[in-house]
This record gives sequence, C-alpha cells and structure tokens, in this order.
Amino acid sequence: MNKELFEYTLHLADNALILGQRNAEWCGHGPALEQDIALTNISLDLIGQARLLYQYAADQYNAMDVGGQAAVAALLPKPWKEFNRALQEDDLAYLREERQFRNLLITELPKGDWAMTILRQFFFSAFQYLQYQQLQQSSDATLAAIADKSLKETAYHLRWSGEWVIRLGDGTAESRRRIEAALADLWMFTGEAFVPAAFETGIAPDPAALRSAWDERIGSVFAEATLDVPATGTWSQGGGKRGVHTEHLGYLLAEMQVLQRTYPNMTW
Amino acid sequence: MNKELFEYTLHLADNALILGQRNAEWCGHGPALEQDIALTNISLDLIGQARLLYQYAADQYNAMDVGGQAAVAALLPKPWKEFNRALQEDDLAYLREERQFRNLLITELPKGDWAMTILRQFFFSAFQYLQYQQLQQSSDATLAAIADKSLKETAYHLRWSGEWVIRLGDGTAESRRRIEAALADLWMFTGEAFVPAAFETGIAPDPAALRSAWDERIGSVFAEATLDVPATGTWSQGGGKRGVHTEHLGYLLAEMQVLQRTYPNMTW
Repeated sequence: MNKELFEYTLHLADNALILGQRNAEWCGHGPALEQDIALTNISLDLIGQARLLYQYAADQYNAMDVGGQAAVAALLPKPWKEFNRALQEDDLAYLREERQFRNLLITELPKGDWAMTILRQFFFSAFQYLQYQQLQQSSDATLAAIADKSLKETAYHLRWSGEWVIRLGDGTAESRRRIEAALADLWMFTGEAFVPAAFETGIAPDPAALRSAWDERIGSVFAEATLDVPATGTWSQGGGKRGVHTEHLGYLLAEMQVLQRTYPNMTW
Repeated sequence: MNKELFEYTLHLADNALILGQRNAEWCGHGPALEQDIALTNISLDLIGQARLLYQYAADQYNAMDVGGQAAVAALLPKPWKEFNRALQEDDLAYLREERQFRNLLITELPKGDWAMTILRQFFFSAFQYLQYQQLQQSSDATLAAIADKSLKETAYHLRWSGEWVIRLGDGTAESRRRIEAALADLWMFTGEAFVPAAFETGIAPDPAALRSAWDERIGSVFAEATLDVPATGTWSQGGGKRGVHTEHLGYLLAEMQVLQRTYPNMTW
C-alpha cells in the first residue's frame, strides 16, 4: 500500500512539474504581455503544487520502515543515496531519471504554438480539476488538503484555457486552422489519464470514473468553440504512468536538471 | 607556459567539439540525404579532432608538477577531483562548466537554417584551416601532428561549405535572401578568432596574422557567390576565449553532458 501511495504521489507531482516546466518556456515569449504573465502564473501554480506533492512523497519515504523503503528503491534518485541525509522534494524533482517519471505523456509534449499550448492546458486542467475534486474526499488527509488548496488554482487554469479554446476555435481562419492542427496532434494523448495505472488502487481514486465528466466539459467548450470532438474510445497512447516516455522528456529533464546534476546536493 | 599551452589546447578542442555538437543537430534533418551525411561526417571529423586535443590536454595535466596543476585548477572539471584517477578526455568534454569553455562564440550559435549552418561552417573552416597550417609548423610536436592530420579534413569542410555558399548566394531569390540574413547575423562573430587571447602566446601562434589570408578566402568565395563582404575592422563580439559565452552554450552543454552528469565516472 505504501508503495502505491508513494508512486501515486509522484505521479501527481510529476504531472504538475513537467507541465509547469513546459509552460515556463513561454515566459517572455507570450503573444501579449497579459497572456505571457497568465501562463507564467499557471507555471508557478503547477510548480507550487509539485513542491507540496514531492515533499509529501519524501515525508512518506522518510517515515517508511526498511521493507517499505526497499519496495520503492527503484523510484529513488541514485545520487541521493550518497548524500547521507533524509530525502527532500528537490531530490525527487531534479535527480530522478526519465524512466522514473510517472507524468502523463501529454504534459511533456513540446509547447508547439500557442494553440497547442492552450489546448493541452485545457485538456489537462479539465482532467486535473476532476482528479483534485475526487482527492478532496480522500481518506489521506495530506492529499485531501493539497487537492483542496490546488483546486482553486486549477479552476482558474481551466477557465482561462477554455476561454482561449473558444477564442481560437471560433476566431479567424488562421486561429481555427491552428487549433484544429493542435487537436489532431493532441487527441491521441488524452486517453492515458483515464486508464488506471498499477498504483491507482487503494487510496488513489479510479481515474476511469472521471471520463464522462471530462467528456462533458470538453464537449460544452468545443460546442462554443464550434470545434468537433473527435471520436472517444479510439486508441490512445500510454506509457507515461509506467515510465515509458516520448523522446521529448529526456531533453526537458536535461535542461531542467542541469543545475542539480552539475552541483549535486548543493545548498543556496 | 604550461598553463597557456593547456588553455590553448582546450580552446582548439572546444571549438571542434562545440561546432561538432551543433552540426550533429542536423543528423536526420538535412535538406537531402547526401548533405545530411556530409554534415554528419563533418561533425564526426570535428569530434575526432576534439578527442585528440582533449586527450593531449589531459596528458599535459597529468604530467604537470603540483605547481603547474594548481595554476590550471580553475579549468578542471569539479566532479573529476572525486574520481581519484588521472584526467581523461571525456572529463574535459563532459564535465567542465560553461565558463570553463574556451570556444569561439561563432561555434556555439544555434544552427538556424541551412544557410546559417553553411555560412558559419565556411567562416569557421576558413579560419581553422589557416590555424592548422600555422600549427603544422609548431615546435610542439603533438599539436603539429594533430594539425597535420586534421588539415585534410578541414580542407574538405572548407571546400564543401564554400561551394554551398556559392550555390546559395548565386542561387534563387529565396536562397540569396537566406544567406544574406545569415551573413547579417553572423558577421559580428567572425572577428573574435583574430583577437589574441591571453593564452595565445609562446607556442600558440598569433591569430591576428591570419586575418588577411582569411579575408582573401572569404572575398574570393563571396565574389563567386555574388555576395558583398561586409566592412572589416568593425566592432566584433568577443568573450568565448575567456569563458564569457552567449546564452546558447548552456543549453547545448546541458544536452551534451547529460549522460556524464547523470552517471559520473561511468564506464561503458
């Protein structure tokens, strides 16, 4: 049970961190100052959520007995073992390797153009919102508290990105062309969230139960955006939840982790 | 004297490695299979030269007395000190930090489009060819031998890139627009090579002596390409030879060094 909760906590944290890092690539490059700041704030929200979740995962590990720690050894950052100190949030974010990350593939895809970034955010936030709502009821008090705190942020991410989906879909011929292209690229990555991983058992709620509410939300925003919802139930790409990632994650990690890799166990 | 030779050897090696790494980004993305392979071969040539030079720098270091080693300590990779073994070529390539690199800025600039890559290669190869010719006469037998071996490769890089400059400059309106844009971006980075660094003294020949031959080469190829040579003697960006780099080098190193940073002192 401890193993599943630890891995699930990493999954939640990795989703937030990786998408936060991706969106941060827009910092200083947004289409307008207001939107640049909005997206950078979303990054900060996500990275803040990741911090709480990583620290909770580290706390879980540090409190485990020897058998529990052995059971999750494959998920731990290798260099940390030489530090001779308790596990910390930064170790989990900056020193794990690609195959140890449990984020959904959709969060690691390149930022693409504005339409791609917007649509990915909308798809993800619509899922994360439902997921956090489930977690608010969790018997795990820490996860429930983090979900409760994060939900307000996610509600804003969802509203902001949904409004942009409508603006792009029901906008100019060019904006429509772009969001339709983004949809064609992204749709195959939307199904992974709803397929339960091995660690989504016990305390982790069943993500499959969220599908119909997610479909409904996508459908209502797409209707306003005059966009067609692709057929559901078609094949979807998975792998992220068990550490099998696209080629893009390695490059993202190389850049994101360079400081901690260069100066292991540094302090500011 | 040992310090200057060591730093100069690193400068030569860094030029070759960084440009080799940059060009390698084209692997699988060239405009035609033959050119893709040509540029990838140039990368391999440059990385091969870098290997010989790094190993020579490592040999120099390993043969220094304590005072000599202390004098170059700031150029050494930090993690290597914990390995308890002699310095090796890979340590110098994969574990030094940005400010320790001595490559010319022109080698680290993003690959841009094909015109940018071609023109950068042409400018650099025209310089490197003259530099290796000088070094063939060096009193340092190892540098002379490496230069002698590398010169044949560089002669090919120079001919290949020069032919492409002509093809693009005297080609279509689009190819001409692109190489003129590349020229506008690159010219300010061409002067650095000819300004002697503090380490270009003693065994290192004076690069300023190569300027007129370089101008002549550029002039004759540009004449065939129907391109105007910008005014020489204008301001040029420097800094690479003393470790002050553009924002681009850090990202390149993060990607290039990720394996050695993740698994320090690994063996295959």
